[in-house]
Amino acid sequence: MAKQEKKVDAITSMDVDFAQWYTDIVKKAELIAYTSVKGCMVIRPYGYAIWENIQRLLDGMFKETGHENVNMPMFIPESLLQKEKDHVEGFAPEVAWVTHGGNTRLEERLCVRPTSETLFCEHYADIVHSYRDLPKLYNQWVSVVRWEKTTRPFLRSREFLWQEGHTIHATAEEAIEETERMLNVYTRFCEECLAMPVVQGKKTESDKFAGAVSTYAIEALMHDGKALQAGTSHYFGDGFAKAFGIQYADKDNTLKYPHQTSWGVTTRLIGAIIMTHGDNNGLVLPPAVAPIQVVIVPAAMHKEGVLEKAEEIRAQLAAAGIRVKLDASDNSPGWKFAEYEVKGVPVRLEIGPRDIAAGQCILAARHNGEKTAVSLEGLVGAVQEKLREVHDGLYDAALKNREAHTYQCRSIEEIQTALAGGDGFIEAMWCGDESCEDEVKAKTGAGSRCIPLTQKQLSDTCVCCGKPAKCMVLWGKAY
Amino acid sequence: MAKQEKKVDAITSMDVDFAQWYTDIVKKAELIAYTSVKGCMVIRPYGYAIWENIQRLLDGMFKETGHENVNMPMFIPESLLQKEKDHVEGFAPEVAWVTHGGNTRLEERLCVRPTSETLFCEHYADIVHSYRDLPKLYNQWVSVVRWEKTTRPFLRSREFLWQEGHTIHATAEEAIEETERMLNVYTRFCEECLAMPVVQGKKTESDKFAGAVSTYAIEALMHDGKALQAGTSHYFGDGFAKAFGIQYADKDNTLKYPHQTSWGVTTRLIGAIIMTHGDNNGLVLPPAVAPIQVVIVPAAMHKEGVLEKAEEIRAQLAAAGIRVKLDASDNSPGWKFAEYEVKGVPVRLEIGPRDIAAGQCILAARHNGEKTAVSLEGLVGAVQEKLREVHDGLYDAALKNREAHTYQCRSIEEIQTALAGGDGFIEAMWCGDESCEDEVKAKTGAGSRCIPLTQKQLSDTCVCCGKPAKCMVLWGKAY
Repeated sequence: MAKQEKKVDAITSMDVDFAQWYTDIVKKAELIAYTSVKGCMVIRPYGYAIWENIQRLLDGMFKETGHENVNMPMFIPESLLQKEKDHVEGFAPEVAWVTHGGNTRLEERLCVRPTSETLFCEHYADIVHSYRDLPKLYNQWVSVVRWEKTTRPFLRSREFLWQEGHTIHATAEEAIEETERMLNVYTRFCEECLAMPVVQGKKTESDKFAGAVSTYAIEALMHDGKALQAGTSHYFGDGFAKAFGIQYADKDNTLKYPHQTSWGVTTRLIGAIIMTHGDNNGLVLPPAVAPIQVVIVPAAMHKEGVLEKAEEIRAQLAAAGIRVKLDASDNSPGWKFAEYEVKGVPVRLEIGPRDIAAGQCILAARHNGEKTAVSLEGLVGAVQEKLREVHDGLYDAALKNREAHTYQCRSIEEIQTALAGGDGFIEAMWCGDESCEDEVKAKTGAGSRCIPLTQKQLSDTCVCCGKPAKCMVLWGKAY
Repeated sequence: MAKQEKKVDAITSMDVDFAQWYTDIVKKAELIAYTSVKGCMVIRPYGYAIWENIQRLLDGMFKETGHENVNMPMFIPESLLQKEKDHVEGFAPEVAWVTHGGNTRLEERLCVRPTSETLFCEHYADIVHSYRDLPKLYNQWVSVVRWEKTTRPFLRSREFLWQEGHTIHATAEEAIEETERMLNVYTRFCEECLAMPVVQGKKTESDKFAGAVSTYAIEALMHDGKALQAGTSHYFGDGFAKAFGIQYADKDNTLKYPHQTSWGVTTRLIGAIIMTHGDNNGLVLPPAVAPIQVVIVPAAMHKEGVLEKAEEIRAQLAAAGIRVKLDASDNSPGWKFAEYEVKGVPVRLEIGPRDIAAGQCILAARHNGEKTAVSLEGLVGAVQEKLREVHDGLYDAALKNREAHTYQCRSIEEIQTALAGGDGFIEAMWCGDESCEDEVKAKTGAGSRCIPLTQKQLSDTCVCCGKPAKCMVLWGKAY
């Protein structure tokens, strides 16, 4: 079918230039636009609608697990940021500093929050006094700023949108349980809503969040074989509580330090969706977060009864809670096919005079191009079933891709050989020494992504030094 | 009933000290907490839940009227802010400036957005080229920063949450229609969701938004007789389009400048709710935005069957979409009564063994203390009816208060006399000269709030100079 002008600029093939393929998609699917603010972007309606769906689903999961939303200031006074030593060392080099209000120089400079632990701690010190005040299970949906040198839409930008959960508990056990609970919430969200399989693990010491006792993360494998950290959950112990003087009177009337966590996911998840499911024709969206789940493209639109039938179907699907759009514009069906293909709409519903006569319509799945004729009777059920099929198909394909690009290695040479054909995940044993971690990265390019929670005993010795191994590490090049 | 420690600190009476009464409520209803960031606040879960309800309802109204959400950067380069002359003059003196990223001085300083017209204009210049690209109907939910000298929670803070709608249209007529449409949306929202009557009007020249051709506003009267601007809607003409070089090819193939609008409401609305409905016992929330609409307080909770019945009722009301909380904590009923009174929960549902035996429960309305016994059969309908009654009662009381404190005046002396007994709205004629506007304010303290869209011909001459009057102005002291 002839495509119109708009689509002349094809998307670069991901095999030719993966980075350009990615940039083409974020632009052509109208997810973002660039601005004159270096490293910051406009998230356009179609991109923002994906984020709104992510927010709605995650926020529901947070509320189900007892969390409440709050809103902290976007500024942190320099003295407050400095209270926890490791934290300030990790973040100070990459914050934006406000030095003037109007024409007046501020007495103390303020940073634009890169993350809000310090603000939450100040607040806890104000409101937590007794064991009755615990736990506090908070979250906020805001943007944060980190002054990155190189930036890419969604993956690494100077300002990005995220949620940051912050909780405070009477005991270490409760806080650790919370840290793991939220890692599981993220895992469930990625797998059930984004159709993206992830590996759960703990970060090594060198890769922990600034100020954390332990950092958990979920890692996903992208089309190009690179790893993407999709979410993190941190256990802080009582380090922040001690730095900020947060204490509570326990039941036994002694003063104790509470234990804290924080956890977050960002608009980076949109980048993960693109690089997990996208193809050379554009974006491919998992149904749970697609702004449009089904687009109806009528054929021979001006023939009697076609538009009426299409509208009847639209109303029927919408009433069942399906996000559906009927494109009754004057553009050709070919233009429309290309448009919604680039935009990754999971299911296209085609209907024309012959379909109507036969009491059916065509459902075309974006991810594999499969077309199925389905009866107009019981259409809602058939569409819901198709959306589930699409989700499962996306998940299975992503899992297969990850499995095909995960290599178990017993030596540096094996890692080098495995990665010679392209990037991927490496599973290999590690002695626990940072020097070996560094050496693996230096020699193979693959850094430690995490220590998977599900361990395998691949061998008894470290892949690098040959000394006794402590654990299996997942290695890879990362975004 | 004996109240426990927590409630010993009573709320200051609004007649004794209105400002302290307000501060007591925002603190004791746990809406906000102060921080070490001067002029910024923590919005606590109960306060933020009100904002979430406001967001959800307004966002629905925006989407119904065809608007899409986007997200712009929080930073504006100084050169971009300066492109529209009036706009920069209005905002530059009160913006926060970012001068450093990490340890590096920025080549150009960036302000933290005080409002985002300039960013939207830059984006329009990028994406608007043809009449086919128009209109764009955008909105964003973000926070903005204005470096205010004196601040008060919700009413005036250095950072506040808001939504800012930004639209661009082919013609002036369409843009003006949009400006008025959104003023009507705000009016409907304030009256139908916040139970707060407002006066619609146009701002005088001296009070317009920086860069606007005309600014519309809605004004509400608070308990203390002061006016509060609850929302604004601006028509920009093609001034910004010219400053930013935004042009589109019209159907006739000539290049034209499009016309723009913007409109916004802020967390200030929470301040308006407090000062419109609150009383000396605390907050009083309109049902549509109350985080808890009904609180169930069981009496003789430990008697057999009471908690079970209370839980059954909770589940029933929740299933009907009512935001209900059962407080089964060990605190005394008296403590609970006081707690939810301070927090302004619209309806308290009391149930004890005698009620259960009689097949009834008690509904107590927060705003007027009225108690009604209602049958447990058909309880959902009775509660819904009660919530509607509460809404209507709040609206009527607010309207009566406004009417009782609105004075029609024909001379400066009449204004002075009217305001001698306390603040209020003044309706008086005006010649249109800024000098008279200034003189009225200097002599009476009442500034021009707006030129009401619904005009009355109170006299033929200006209240100040006696020259022929052009219109009736609403005057008052303002937040």
